[in-house]
Amino acid sequence: MAEIEEKTEIELEYESLLVHLREEHIDTFRDVFFNLHNYEQSEFYLELEEEDRQRMYQFLSPEEVAEFFDSLELDPEEFEVLFDTMDARYAAEMLGAMQYDNAVDILSEVSKEKLTSFLTLMEREDAQEIRKLMNYEEDTAGGIMTTEFVSVTSLMTVREAMRHLKNMAPNSETIYYVFVVNKDRKLAGILSLRELIIADDDAYIGDIMVERVVSVRVSEDQEEVARIMRDYDFLAMPVVDYQDHLLGIITADDIMDVIDEEASEDYSRLAGMTEIEPASDSSFSTAKKRLPWLIGLTFMGMITAAMLTTFEDTLAQVAVLAAFIPIIGGMAGNSGTQSLAVAVRGIATGEIKDTSKMKLALRETGSGLITGLVCGLILFGIISLLYRSPILGIIVGVSLLIAMTLATLLGTLVPLVMSRMNIDPAVASGPFITTANDIISMLVYFSLANAFMSYLL
Amino acid sequence: MAEIEEKTEIELEYESLLVHLREEHIDTFRDVFFNLHNYEQSEFYLELEEEDRQRMYQFLSPEEVAEFFDSLELDPEEFEVLFDTMDARYAAEMLGAMQYDNAVDILSEVSKEKLTSFLTLMEREDAQEIRKLMNYEEDTAGGIMTTEFVSVTSLMTVREAMRHLKNMAPNSETIYYVFVVNKDRKLAGILSLRELIIADDDAYIGDIMVERVVSVRVSEDQEEVARIMRDYDFLAMPVVDYQDHLLGIITADDIMDVIDEEASEDYSRLAGMTEIEPASDSSFSTAKKRLPWLIGLTFMGMITAAMLTTFEDTLAQVAVLAAFIPIIGGMAGNSGTQSLAVAVRGIATGEIKDTSKMKLALRETGSGLITGLVCGLILFGIISLLYRSPILGIIVGVSLLIAMTLATLLGTLVPLVMSRMNIDPAVASGPFITTANDIISMLVYFSLANAFMSYLL
Repeated sequence: MAEIEEKTEIELEYESLLVHLREEHIDTFRDVFFNLHNYEQSEFYLELEEEDRQRMYQFLSPEEVAEFFDSLELDPEEFEVLFDTMDARYAAEMLGAMQYDNAVDILSEVSKEKLTSFLTLMEREDAQEIRKLMNYEEDTAGGIMTTEFVSVTSLMTVREAMRHLKNMAPNSETIYYVFVVNKDRKLAGILSLRELIIADDDAYIGDIMVERVVSVRVSEDQEEVARIMRDYDFLAMPVVDYQDHLLGIITADDIMDVIDEEASEDYSRLAGMTEIEPASDSSFSTAKKRLPWLIGLTFMGMITAAMLTTFEDTLAQVAVLAAFIPIIGGMAGNSGTQSLAVAVRGIATGEIKDTSKMKLALRETGSGLITGLVCGLILFGIISLLYRSPILGIIVGVSLLIAMTLATLLGTLVPLVMSRMNIDPAVASGPFITTANDIISMLVYFSLANAFMSYLL
Repeated sequence: MAEIEEKTEIELEYESLLVHLREEHIDTFRDVFFNLHNYEQSEFYLELEEEDRQRMYQFLSPEEVAEFFDSLELDPEEFEVLFDTMDARYAAEMLGAMQYDNAVDILSEVSKEKLTSFLTLMEREDAQEIRKLMNYEEDTAGGIMTTEFVSVTSLMTVREAMRHLKNMAPNSETIYYVFVVNKDRKLAGILSLRELIIADDDAYIGDIMVERVVSVRVSEDQEEVARIMRDYDFLAMPVVDYQDHLLGIITADDIMDVIDEEASEDYSRLAGMTEIEPASDSSFSTAKKRLPWLIGLTFMGMITAAMLTTFEDTLAQVAVLAAFIPIIGGMAGNSGTQSLAVAVRGIATGEIKDTSKMKLALRETGSGLITGLVCGLILFGIISLLYRSPILGIIVGVSLLIAMTLATLLGTLVPLVMSRMNIDPAVASGPFITTANDIISMLVYFSLANAFMSYLL
């Protein structure tokens, strides 16, 4: 029994497989290789050096390679490199044998010339299906659906449907749902394989199918599709056009990737990045990706600096004021980021609807007021004791209270307003909110300090 | 056809259903209600007021309620409240009829008295299964598995297995995998329903089953289980004890929740929160949850303030130095958070293995050096121009370069070291790293300023 924890065991297996490959024991290699799961095959393949991959292409047919290419997870640039060394005809056949939705994912990342060459070399039927799917926007239901599904008509009996299913199984991405269409290919119902198996063999599909089908339009956003599939716990979902014609299906494994992708996107944005760079990236390419954000933030930071410079006289008179700049700015930043995170995730998961936006803004501001009061009191206490200046304690404490309250309000309002304007609220990154809060909190702090200057001297 | 976008349509349906419920049209209510998907039933139920829920319990059997309770998603406290008003015997029967893993999820959240009472009132067989499952740690494979699966022996034929499957289908969480056990219930193989359907009716299970089964131990962390299921694209996975006895299975829908839960946890921690509070929380309970973090950060912030106070003389002499405190601290915080995010997600997704930790630390520090150089140069340029003081520009720019480099190093090392010590690296929240970087960056900045004091005056 293969236990996944015993990494060494599977690594040993890969090693001996590599020996078979290099010594060209074709039959042994094929035996051992096909005993692996597709994911393991892809893992083995990814670790190979170029010349070993070339050998593998000789030992395996394009269709056999397609099997594990379906579970291959690579970054866009890596596919481009990979196809540079694969014979174009072989690659085209392999892509045609893949599940269409996966082939489309890969082909939308390669250069235009490669795409054209692959589609020309591919079997006509496959090329046609792939071309059709490539027309849909990447982030929509159409962009992630596949056309390899099992459909039956309502006039079939369960026995006939099962026989049809058996024939279609090898070329369908899932057989666990059967989609029922009427004669003009409009979606009329759905049956899970479970229901089909329990049903009487002579029953008509039309009599036992579920007519209340939850479907998505082909242009629906993939995030919305993911939400529906998760809520309903579906393993697959039909995609229809505006006339309810069945165009394709979306399966649970694709949706897992979408959920992950979207969550990872929100996460990166909170950290002020466009993406979590793959570990294989170099320092240079990482720096290149992060610089646009960081340069923007440098300029925003200069606004804070310029504003603080106008308070130079105040600072020169009471230099100790500067000591509390980081804590006031920092705490405002923390509170603002917390509110931002709540609003961004609430909008993403659909928990926050239009009606509850006002409520959330009030809740967050209230929470900012309470936490600001508690932290402000703590600061007041510490400063009164340590610096023996209650007035300094009051100025810093009150500034903190006001800064944290405003920060929570800003942290909530910015994503809510953005989502109202149909901008992805995740773009309002954590660092952006933090820097904006720096400016506000410094303005509050030094205005207060200026007002009470006479008591401080 | 029910289109999910037309919210109003389904809302109208809920409204008319509510009318049937209130006017006690039992048959019509049941007809319409059972036409809904389980998720829709649960949505309808959640919107009901207490007296309407009571009415529903009269019209539906505990088993019928269990059907949609399986798709009910509620916070722990909400379940407690819900059972306060449900007849204990009814609740016990309902829980016994739920899928065991879901019942366990709910029961681990209710009070001890309620738990005991429910388990006593429940059918003995159900209570036994649930008690067994409750013994496993919540975040392990055992904690999320169910015992409702279909198992066959290798001596059965495909025809016999299909008949067995048909009988077991109503009480199994999934029938899309059939698990093959030998006579002492050790896991011997696996077959997907797809393979079973394609196979010859007279073939023996032992001859066609896949013997290379990927299974997880009952004590395995749920995050690791999620990783394996996503990599392999499994819809269900067997859970075994240390002697390879088949104990239960984990299904894809539970794993989707785990992926979401873990991603959401990492996200919250990055924002410096224990969780994203539900929108229904009040300001007070939100504040209560956030205060521990914020109070801790206030004390950390006071360390920065105390350290800056030691530079009071420097600040008194060159007050303009204070103006660049937010930008240096902020940029170090931003860079540190970016590195933290990369390390935390890399560890969570398994992309970063022990061997690549050093490489990542170098990559990140290199990236900190490059971005620090670029942003430092920009600052130098602006300050030289705006403040007509190249020496101030040099001090601020070099401080930024050093602070950003150290911040990326710290942001990477802290989570890596924590994971080595078997502490969840996500605990090193964004604000924690940011505040730690505040201290370091201020120390660098003012040490530099002190050293070049004579040129600044």
